Amino acid sequence: MSDEIKQNPEGKSHKELRKEYTFNKLKGLGQEIIEEIEKQKVPSVKVPSRGTSNIVYDEAKRYYVLGDRYGRRSLGNVKQIRKLGQMVYVANFCKDLVQREKTATIREMYYVSEGWGISFKTQQESNIVGEDLEVTLGTTREDLGLMPEEDGASVYGDLTLKDGDVEINALKAGKSGYTISPTIDQVDFLDCNVDRVIAVETMGMFHRMVQEKAYDRFNTLIVGLKGQAARATRRFIKRVNEELHLPVYICNDGDPWGFHIAQVIISGSAKLAHVNHDLATPDAKFMGVTASDIINYDLPTDNLKDVDVMRLKELAKDPRYKSDFWQTEIKKMLKIGKKAEQQSFSKYGLEYVVDTYFPEKLEAME
Amino acid sequence: MSDEIKQNPEGKSHKELRKEYTFNKLKGLGQEIIEEIEKQKVPSVKVPSRGTSNIVYDEAKRYYVLGDRYGRRSLGNVKQIRKLGQMVYVANFCKDLVQREKTATIREMYYVSEGWGISFKTQQESNIVGEDLEVTLGTTREDLGLMPEEDGASVYGDLTLKDGDVEINALKAGKSGYTISPTIDQVDFLDCNVDRVIAVETMGMFHRMVQEKAYDRFNTLIVGLKGQAARATRRFIKRVNEELHLPVYICNDGDPWGFHIAQVIISGSAKLAHVNHDLATPDAKFMGVTASDIINYDLPTDNLKDVDVMRLKELAKDPRYKSDFWQTEIKKMLKIGKKAEQQSFSKYGLEYVVDTYFPEKLEAME
Repeated sequence: MSDEIKQNPEGKSHKELRKEYTFNKLKGLGQEIIEEIEKQKVPSVKVPSRGTSNIVYDEAKRYYVLGDRYGRRSLGNVKQIRKLGQMVYVANFCKDLVQREKTATIREMYYVSEGWGISFKTQQESNIVGEDLEVTLGTTREDLGLMPEEDGASVYGDLTLKDGDVEINALKAGKSGYTISPTIDQVDFLDCNVDRVIAVETMGMFHRMVQEKAYDRFNTLIVGLKGQAARATRRFIKRVNEELHLPVYICNDGDPWGFHIAQVIISGSAKLAHVNHDLATPDAKFMGVTASDIINYDLPTDNLKDVDVMRLKELAKDPRYKSDFWQTEIKKMLKIGKKAEQQSFSKYGLEYVVDTYFPEKLEAME
Repeated sequence: MSDEIKQNPEGKSHKELRKEYTFNKLKGLGQEIIEEIEKQKVPSVKVPSRGTSNIVYDEAKRYYVLGDRYGRRSLGNVKQIRKLGQMVYVANFCKDLVQREKTATIREMYYVSEGWGISFKTQQESNIVGEDLEVTLGTTREDLGLMPEEDGASVYGDLTLKDGDVEINALKAGKSGYTISPTIDQVDFLDCNVDRVIAVETMGMFHRMVQEKAYDRFNTLIVGLKGQAARATRRFIKRVNEELHLPVYICNDGDPWGFHIAQVIISGSAKLAHVNHDLATPDAKFMGVTASDIINYDLPTDNLKDVDVMRLKELAKDPRYKSDFWQTEIKKMLKIGKKAEQQSFSKYGLEYVVDTYFPEKLEAME
């Protein structure tokens, strides 16, 4: 979908194009079914398989994608009637949401289904049908108007966005910055005066960077990830990287969990292989904290736990970590048997991380 | 402290008064110690006890406070030397933070202490000394510049704030609203054109209210609590209630956890008895979801689990729940054996909660 948007044939906004695209996808699904009925065929829908064996790491794209396998959900199969019926109901509900520019949480949809006659028995059941629709249409759930509960990351820096009727500059939304909402694809980027993006794992580090004016000193957007990045955050990072051509650096804790948080932003997750084309940012770079940083900056550390060692060994075998950089750093961390948090730089004073660490790393990476 | 600020003798901003007050408290602590030394006494510091037996529910104030018991931490006691030394170090660190208008996370302080000679061995140890200082001075940790990792709630509505050099209107910070930062006491309220505050437990409900323009229809601030309210959120709610005289209504899930989230905002927690004077909002009201709502609106429910029943029975005995309203609702919930989520109103369509439920409840309560 990204390609179609980039062409932007009639000067339409990101939001408008996205809406049009999704609306047509949903309409198409309905039309297919109607056409089959008109041809007196038994209607069925082709649903790409998202089983483990159909999730492939694409070396060229540098993220997980779905393979070619798919199943058919047919009204001719008694077991599938209910599921296909629910899918059409959800698609219709979503078409209504998209048309009216509204959203619903997946929890709200679960309750709304009470009126459908074939209501969901559990939240789990309704989630699966939501994902079925996502994978069938190749759009994100958010494009369909179905939102997770959680908001995304905080953003601070000289980026101006248009969200509905409102223009927001992310330097002027308060000390905690602009919050990426789940509806980030309804937002247009109007203006941007930064050279890069630095995303950090903790809000502690985010506030440190804001206080030390890192946005100004490195001419950067600061993104506070709040741990594992929400889907909206990953979408935002991909959009600023592709649409605004900003290089992205990720600075997390120096431990397997910090590596993983970065890697999900970079290469996507296997579980979301069907939407990684909208979420992964393969050009984003892991800045630290690396095992080398732990040694070079003599950081306060904790010993690796058994679970950390196990996880690091898993990562070493993961195709997303096959570069020399990752292989070296994973081995080094296993060798020293230590991990370090990003806030541990404050051993040298609160300002050190912004005064010394970031400039040195950026120089080495750019 | 609230009282002194309300008088606001020289037209100073909230932020300036708060800074002055905290700075003097910290300075006073140091002076006390110096004076004792000059009088050739062994220095000691009086630390109010925060043990369970010293936490009292104050009927007049309608929140938990600390009683009169206290201990003395003295340099004459070998066991206490290290702890008192650390406390003075932390106080000095905080004085520096306050003076420079900076903050540090409690994690950063833990690492900074590496340079003190009497560094903390664990985060737990440093947290306790931070709390000791808080209780000794009667100020919040945030006033001392020590921040938690977490940001506060999201706010949407016609409130204009001044945060540093920036003026923010909470209608214009994006769909996810203005995020209450841990430094909420450095913020001044400039202008406010609403009649009330409605705080809701989930961001799902927050986004629903924003989409249905509840801010406009009820002339309200919308606060998205994100579950248990962060300290910064509780402080914000208290400030808008006291300084702007806005009535506060809380709408949570209809279960013991939702009741508890509301009650901590209203009456404070026992654990934070020493700062409840800054955090509790005794005039805030629980709007729902009540057991009566579950019946009257015929909401989709789940059965109470054993742990819910146990918790409800505990609440029934808690002094914060002794009003007729709470006693009736708790008994009713135990009787029907059911609980309901706030999003369950979408059984009647997404708009129902804003079109019907909120207006009916507000009319009954105001």
